[in-house]
Amino acid sequence: MIERIASDARAGADARSARPLHVALVGFGTVGSAVARILTETAPAGLRLTDIYNRGVARKRAAWVPDTVRWTERIEDVLRGEADVIVELVGGVAPARAWIAEALGAGKSVVTANKLVIAEHGADLLALADTNGVSLRFEGAVAGGVPVVHGLQVGIAGDHLQAVTGIVNGTCNYILSSMDAGGASFDEALAAARELGFAEADASSDIDGIDARAKLAILAWLGLGQRVLPGQISSTSIAPIEAIDFAYARRLHTTIRQVAEARIEDGRLVARVSPALVPESSPLARVAGSQNLVITDGRYGGRVGFFGAGAGGAPTAVAVVSDLLALARGDAGARPATREAMPLAPSFTAPHYLRFRVVDRRGIVAALAGALADHGINIDAVLQEPGWPADALPFVITTEACSSADVGRALEAMARFDFHRQRPLCLPMLDRR
Amino acid sequence: MIERIASDARAGADARSARPLHVALVGFGTVGSAVARILTETAPAGLRLTDIYNRGVARKRAAWVPDTVRWTERIEDVLRGEADVIVELVGGVAPARAWIAEALGAGKSVVTANKLVIAEHGADLLALADTNGVSLRFEGAVAGGVPVVHGLQVGIAGDHLQAVTGIVNGTCNYILSSMDAGGASFDEALAAARELGFAEADASSDIDGIDARAKLAILAWLGLGQRVLPGQISSTSIAPIEAIDFAYARRLHTTIRQVAEARIEDGRLVARVSPALVPESSPLARVAGSQNLVITDGRYGGRVGFFGAGAGGAPTAVAVVSDLLALARGDAGARPATREAMPLAPSFTAPHYLRFRVVDRRGIVAALAGALADHGINIDAVLQEPGWPADALPFVITTEACSSADVGRALEAMARFDFHRQRPLCLPMLDRR
Repeated sequence: MIERIASDARAGADARSARPLHVALVGFGTVGSAVARILTETAPAGLRLTDIYNRGVARKRAAWVPDTVRWTERIEDVLRGEADVIVELVGGVAPARAWIAEALGAGKSVVTANKLVIAEHGADLLALADTNGVSLRFEGAVAGGVPVVHGLQVGIAGDHLQAVTGIVNGTCNYILSSMDAGGASFDEALAAARELGFAEADASSDIDGIDARAKLAILAWLGLGQRVLPGQISSTSIAPIEAIDFAYARRLHTTIRQVAEARIEDGRLVARVSPALVPESSPLARVAGSQNLVITDGRYGGRVGFFGAGAGGAPTAVAVVSDLLALARGDAGARPATREAMPLAPSFTAPHYLRFRVVDRRGIVAALAGALADHGINIDAVLQEPGWPADALPFVITTEACSSADVGRALEAMARFDFHRQRPLCLPMLDRR
Repeated sequence: MIERIASDARAGADARSARPLHVALVGFGTVGSAVARILTETAPAGLRLTDIYNRGVARKRAAWVPDTVRWTERIEDVLRGEADVIVELVGGVAPARAWIAEALGAGKSVVTANKLVIAEHGADLLALADTNGVSLRFEGAVAGGVPVVHGLQVGIAGDHLQAVTGIVNGTCNYILSSMDAGGASFDEALAAARELGFAEADASSDIDGIDARAKLAILAWLGLGQRVLPGQISSTSIAPIEAIDFAYARRLHTTIRQVAEARIEDGRLVARVSPALVPESSPLARVAGSQNLVITDGRYGGRVGFFGAGAGGAPTAVAVVSDLLALARGDAGARPATREAMPLAPSFTAPHYLRFRVVDRRGIVAALAGALADHGINIDAVLQEPGWPADALPFVITTEACSSADVGRALEAMARFDFHRQRPLCLPMLDRR
């Protein structure tokens, strides 16, 4: 019986080799045109680009796309057309989600690089694909050209993961790694990122962690078998990071990166996106520019990592074409690990970095230390770089491992002190990564 | 049930959830027992461990293995038994190759972690699997727990790779990274590796690159679509590396690692395993201890990397169980990229590091420089660390990029000089990784 199944699956692939999968692109922007280019240049067996949907076809039509490809501005032409697979690359939840659902309902498989749709509706859409006997694949939805979706669902599916940690937003990593390397201010680094095309005009979704938490929701689902909506994941902006923080980070043999982390801790799911201090010895500290990195910690296999280009047309297009090739050979796709559902943890445990900027006077450290002690938090170190004016003195207190909730309460208590020139900055320190 | 199988892999998966795949382990050593442990502890849906073959069952039998598992010392019990999948973990070419072929011929799928069998006979065995309508999977055959086989065959299958570069031998990496960090001699580092179980009593297959070239043959096949036998790949031992070489490497902002590299260069395949100087900024330089790392360079996706535990029972067992899970959901498996076959390049182009140990006297550098110039090789730098006796003076010449064949000829010409205390050491310098 088993032999029959394998044999049937292969017969299916053989049958398809006579009639390649007909592929319709929905969206001919940066990623869509790169997908078309790979399909045209490498002409992979079993795939044929047949349709392209986009608004303003007259403007979009490219001379290098084969004449046999039909261009259309009417989405129903592709959703109700003859293509076997719809490649959704328009982004955003509406109308993408509805189009994906309509395609699946019409018996077409779907490949998408849409992180928001998968993070919010992935499970429902996979169920819809199952009901209709078709497939939904989304390698490009997380970390662009880094093959971490297949990696989690297939490559290390045999492990039992405890944590998935990553740098999954290239804009933030570009900003923080150039502040790190060149001593630029946040605003300067952001401006440079915009100039080089690594940040959009409105980069708030990147900077505030909104982009990364959608990706983290997918990683937690695939890697830890935990469904969590992006809106449930706490996220902290990287905007308050200053050049002085990199100086202090270096004194602690660390640097600062935007880290997305999902981890099982005492039967609860810790999930957060925030700037964090990472040890210089960690692979996370060495991710440069707009690269992405995802690290997993498994009960059996230990630490495994995947890195590469986190965004960009061609790398994301590789993810899409890889999905198409899997469909062409009849691979129905893996399903996320099924694990006992765990509640979201209200806090997490880590050492913390607290940076204050104060009007200097006697007793400040004693006052802050008292507030920490009142909340059961032990100080690990007090650091103060020389050369700053007494009316805006930056200094740092690091704590031993403690609850993030306790730190939050201690910071609230500290707010009553009148020596602050600025709201204190609080970053977790990753110790083991 | 048969009616439900139809032509659809998902229906197959449903059918199998009623009757899980029956799995027979062939070999109950470090990896085999770890596979049994994962299957027992995590009880993945769709898989059931039914048989274990090993010599000396009375000695091997483990109390934690479920009573329902049949133990046997007769290989024909499993090859002709009722198991759906044979997991081959005995290693070596004979009798493993014959057993795999017999299992495939009997309509059983096979999962193996056997690098030698796959490197030498992978293509034939895949064809045999196809003929018999079954699958052959081998995620564990390269780099243990690093999911690079799936990564190349599925995750980035849509790219067109130009190069695959890796650190794929944990023993060599352990030795070289501890020489690097601690200043140990080669013999001391090897002894420490043996003591900690990172090197076997006879480590020559690791040290001389024999192990790594089998893995590189598989990577070149999967990633570049080029069939090359391990015996065709040039390999150089790491044994002549001395502590002084790490001192010189540091002056050049590099370190030394055993690197396996397969690359398309001018329509030919460059494939070699050798110790090499790698820039400190390269991920290759930061692979510590027995970890493995594989980096790919693709025309579309750029650089992608995979890292993790390169060996060890549990990480390799994760690879095996991941393969089993893919079989359980009816994934017939991908096939290596089909690309135009290219001839092996007789040499490669790189800057070279030449370390001499001489009886010091006047005119040595001039003589060596003359020999290099005679072969059209330009010198980039001459380095000499102070503090060595004049009768065994180590010093280094680095060259500009040149043909490895020309360097070989220049070294032959230099052999006639009578000032050598030792055969010169010649290492390529990786510039772009």
